[in-house]
Amino acid sequence: MSLLDDLKWRYATKKMNGNVVPQEKVDYILEAVRLSASSSGLQPYEIFVITNAELLEKIKVLAWNQSQITDCSHLLVFAAWDGYSLERIEKVFARTLAERGLPADTMDDYKKTLWGMYEPLPTEWHANHAARQAYIALGTALAAAAEQKVDATPMEGFTPEEVDKLLELKEKGLKSAVLLPLGYRDEANDWLVNMKKVRTPKEIFITEIK
Amino acid sequence: MSLLDDLKWRYATKKMNGNVVPQEKVDYILEAVRLSASSSGLQPYEIFVITNAELLEKIKVLAWNQSQITDCSHLLVFAAWDGYSLERIEKVFARTLAERGLPADTMDDYKKTLWGMYEPLPTEWHANHAARQAYIALGTALAAAAEQKVDATPMEGFTPEEVDKLLELKEKGLKSAVLLPLGYRDEANDWLVNMKKVRTPKEIFITEIK
Repeated sequence: MSLLDDLKWRYATKKMNGNVVPQEKVDYILEAVRLSASSSGLQPYEIFVITNAELLEKIKVLAWNQSQITDCSHLLVFAAWDGYSLERIEKVFARTLAERGLPADTMDDYKKTLWGMYEPLPTEWHANHAARQAYIALGTALAAAAEQKVDATPMEGFTPEEVDKLLELKEKGLKSAVLLPLGYRDEANDWLVNMKKVRTPKEIFITEIK
Repeated sequence: MSLLDDLKWRYATKKMNGNVVPQEKVDYILEAVRLSASSSGLQPYEIFVITNAELLEKIKVLAWNQSQITDCSHLLVFAAWDGYSLERIEKVFARTLAERGLPADTMDDYKKTLWGMYEPLPTEWHANHAARQAYIALGTALAAAAEQKVDATPMEGFTPEEVDKLLELKEKGLKSAVLLPLGYRDEANDWLVNMKKVRTPKEIFITEIK
């Protein structure tokens, strides 16, 4: 199967059947997320993988009682940095240079330029920019899950402030950006499973400038 | 090759060699983008595919003269809606229902709820939310390009307002969010090509809550 076939196969599963996704498939999807591209390679987000039933029940209440939260096998929470800081940037760059066996000051000019741009921008810009990077990884996760024939439903319908409290994200300098339950479609009970996948027609979606 | 292998193969190519990506591969990547998930299926962005050499020269100037803009084969501009509107939402939902052969009022309650949430939010929230959806598609595009062994470099280093002017995006209710040159790596001249790919270690990046 090609990625295009995988993307046609996937859909935002509305009803999951509770079957458990094998750990190796979860690990595969998480590794794809970890390999995702991000601005300046900062990967300004973390992933929480929740299987605790009690916690999932609590999150479900904060997500309009959507059933996927408890019928899934693993709930991924994409939690983005609440802002960039020189300390956070330095930590990532130091790791990159150490792993590449390069002198510790190799990226100093780049770091200066980058922080010179980021520092004056409002906190909200920071948080939004970090969340966007997490959405690149969300795109990767959806592709990886589909390749593994695992269903996945991107969910923005939740109260982020409450989820942040529940998972103590503020203390970690994080904000929940998007949820992604992983599991398996309940074919008999999902109203969406047999609906045609509809997308914006090519002629509207794409403009070529030759 | 699996998606994971593809992700290991790809990197943010710094120097491209000018070779042309076959149209079928470009079409494949664009179709993957078009099939990407988005919030409520609104796909609140459009893709501009630029091959016009004169225009690429102008964009390069607006993108810190980064060489990929003119050494690539096709430049994708992800241009997000500058805001949601009832009209825009209705157009998408009407198309969805028509293609699914469902009555035109099937999604009226959902539309009401959605617009009830979106309408009071500031324009900046709208634009940011739309751009995030485009970043899901960016993630898909990177996976699709890697699968096709096409190099792709996500680029945020440009002046969006100026690119918007150049492509007359404001008139279309769009804002440029991110650029993605497609092309082929110039192995002999790209300083990054042989560097180790470094990512946040799993134990920091992922937290399991069992």
